[in-house]
Amino acid sequence: MAAPVPARPRPRVVIVGAGFAGLSAARELARHDVDIVLIDKQNHHLFQPLLYQVATAGLSPADIAQPIRSIVRRQPRTQVLLDSVDGVDKAARQVRLASGAALDYDALIVATGARHSYFGASWADRAPGIKTIDDAISVRRTILLALEKAETSRQEHLAERAEYLTFVVVGGGPTGVEMAGAIAELTRAAAEAEFPHITRHCVRIILVQSEQRLLPSFPPSLGAAAQRALEGLGVQVRLGSRVTAIDDDGVIIADQRIAASTVVWAAGVRASPAAGWLDAAADRAGRVIVGGDLAVPGDPHIFVIGDTAAVVDASGKPVPGIAPAAKQMGRHAARTALARLRGAAGPGAFRYRSFGNLATIGRKCAVVDFGWLRLSGLLAWLLWSAAHIYFLIGFRNRLIVCANWAWNYITFDRGARLITGIDRTM
Amino acid sequence: MAAPVPARPRPRVVIVGAGFAGLSAARELARHDVDIVLIDKQNHHLFQPLLYQVATAGLSPADIAQPIRSIVRRQPRTQVLLDSVDGVDKAARQVRLASGAALDYDALIVATGARHSYFGASWADRAPGIKTIDDAISVRRTILLALEKAETSRQEHLAERAEYLTFVVVGGGPTGVEMAGAIAELTRAAAEAEFPHITRHCVRIILVQSEQRLLPSFPPSLGAAAQRALEGLGVQVRLGSRVTAIDDDGVIIADQRIAASTVVWAAGVRASPAAGWLDAAADRAGRVIVGGDLAVPGDPHIFVIGDTAAVVDASGKPVPGIAPAAKQMGRHAARTALARLRGAAGPGAFRYRSFGNLATIGRKCAVVDFGWLRLSGLLAWLLWSAAHIYFLIGFRNRLIVCANWAWNYITFDRGARLITGIDRTM
Repeated sequence: MAAPVPARPRPRVVIVGAGFAGLSAARELARHDVDIVLIDKQNHHLFQPLLYQVATAGLSPADIAQPIRSIVRRQPRTQVLLDSVDGVDKAARQVRLASGAALDYDALIVATGARHSYFGASWADRAPGIKTIDDAISVRRTILLALEKAETSRQEHLAERAEYLTFVVVGGGPTGVEMAGAIAELTRAAAEAEFPHITRHCVRIILVQSEQRLLPSFPPSLGAAAQRALEGLGVQVRLGSRVTAIDDDGVIIADQRIAASTVVWAAGVRASPAAGWLDAAADRAGRVIVGGDLAVPGDPHIFVIGDTAAVVDASGKPVPGIAPAAKQMGRHAARTALARLRGAAGPGAFRYRSFGNLATIGRKCAVVDFGWLRLSGLLAWLLWSAAHIYFLIGFRNRLIVCANWAWNYITFDRGARLITGIDRTM
Repeated sequence: MAAPVPARPRPRVVIVGAGFAGLSAARELARHDVDIVLIDKQNHHLFQPLLYQVATAGLSPADIAQPIRSIVRRQPRTQVLLDSVDGVDKAARQVRLASGAALDYDALIVATGARHSYFGASWADRAPGIKTIDDAISVRRTILLALEKAETSRQEHLAERAEYLTFVVVGGGPTGVEMAGAIAELTRAAAEAEFPHITRHCVRIILVQSEQRLLPSFPPSLGAAAQRALEGLGVQVRLGSRVTAIDDDGVIIADQRIAASTVVWAAGVRASPAAGWLDAAADRAGRVIVGGDLAVPGDPHIFVIGDTAAVVDASGKPVPGIAPAAKQMGRHAARTALARLRGAAGPGAFRYRSFGNLATIGRKCAVVDFGWLRLSGLLAWLLWSAAHIYFLIGFRNRLIVCANWAWNYITFDRGARLITGIDRTM
């Protein structure tokens, strides 16, 4: 089945990656008479914007993930492969898979996303980022174990105790702001209710941002609102600061050493190695530089979209690395690929339509930028919640997430506060 | 705090293990004027009777587990320690903890449960049992990966494909019966809806039972009913069979080799090493032999309860290793300990009150034995569901599990069908 078959009844489009961009391309293509092969190294699509909630024990992994097969079950010409790509043979029009198979394509859509980037440093073990469910569970374990260890550490070990109760988040974009806010709420609720030896004054949360304000992709007034909200939750915001070292004891921020057992990385991403497979030009973050048609220059049947692509859209602006943009790119690449397979002209250059930009800070506060309207506070948070629940794939997940959030909101109870995989760390 | 403090205002009862037995003891003690220290190596209590549902992707871990701190948050004299026990110094009345601390006790209640036992063989890696959340997630990953690999295996590899689609469950007690039924339903639903190259006739599920009937702890008629129900789901039941070897290729059952990539162990358990800590007599399964008062003979302030204890109750019958019996033992040990701390006579010998015995076979079938009433089929399943949801700790979990089950029942959708930790296996 995965072996090359000489004559195919329909053209075959291979999509690599089932994130927002890849899935959106697959959905668009499913309405047309083409065979689709959707390859991902995970069996599930992940609603990444809520992954920080898994890392801070508000949601369970299954609340924000859905098996890819289940998403495309009503698309008879879509085949799902759990596999990863080793390379692309552009001359033979074949994708080489890690399992050893080679897969012919008539059009190829690469949407393999990005991982965090440590700018060359080897800090991954000490300061995990949050891109996959396993990442999020690992961060959750680190945070919850730190609280347990602080609670049971003895009086003669005050320094050790302070280290357990210091949480450093590196990066002041939406992910960093959301993580810092969620850690503040998790530790505050834990200190109030369940850890008698921890008060909220024992807990120190530091958000390190290299630029001079938080949320640089938002208007300055919303960055300032986010900072006020975080400081209200007890987070220390360090603007214009850089982390110069991370080691077993903690971090060094501008020559100051801060002992911290939990360090979370939300500072930089690096695109998947697709540029290498395609022998294509990439920008500094490893993203493939594609044309306005989202195709690799010189190869009109290979498209790169989502966080793997560096795109300047028809309005001349770079397209942001957020879910709505990824979905729009998926649709556009699918339509262009279809047109070209039929020998027709494509829909022209991609144009990103922004429906707004959202980030949340805590249980009752978010910032929303619609361009014509800027909101912060509770109303923004309600909008943020509604949007995220609406866009969560699958009715069932929406229902469960709603119930979970309603419950958390009413009771401050964090149901997913489990430490698993503990045998590996203790 | 964990260090010995010379003068304590109240007697201190140390409980090791926060399963059904330990938690029930803690709840009973919380009503009286004693200090309680509850030690567990996990941060959560686990509703073990539903763990097979996590292993077969019906429920998420957080649906059946709750942080111990959250359970005892309204018990001001109960302290929770995330730690494990290395030994007990009976002369000094101290528990030695893995973290290095020693903890004084006036009474000690040991409820450390059991792990699976391979009767001396080294089959744990190849045939995992299901006792912890990590066990269940690991089995879930094995089953779901086997389906994915079978779906994408090529025609020239028919034997490999058959191996992926063969599932062997070892042990015909309630856990084995429940696992075999749940695997049958999971694979059938997957074959029908989402794996176009797998039909239900490709899947082989074998339940191996050494005795001559299933569910030996139930009346023979219910064992036979369970067998009919399983066979109706396509499970091959092998009675009077023993697994003599398990290796990388599969299992050997009575000289017949069966190639299977998934083998689940539900055959035997071995108690925790408490008998060693206490230098007490144990039975063949490692369970501490305690008196009718649930105390270690010769040491009236040390109690062993739940799956760690071998108990013959006041009626002369051995107490079964199930959740209701564990809870009753917890209450009884707590009352006896309290009485002895006050110098009073205890409540006498433990007497197990059976409220019935339940096991489920699938979405619509269970067996229930009330003694005076024996049921199998849909009505038994409804009773089983009601009982399990009722006894799940925490209202929130009940709500979520209800919603999940209702959804699964209506749609056949298995929401928790995620393969995580995949990087370690692929």
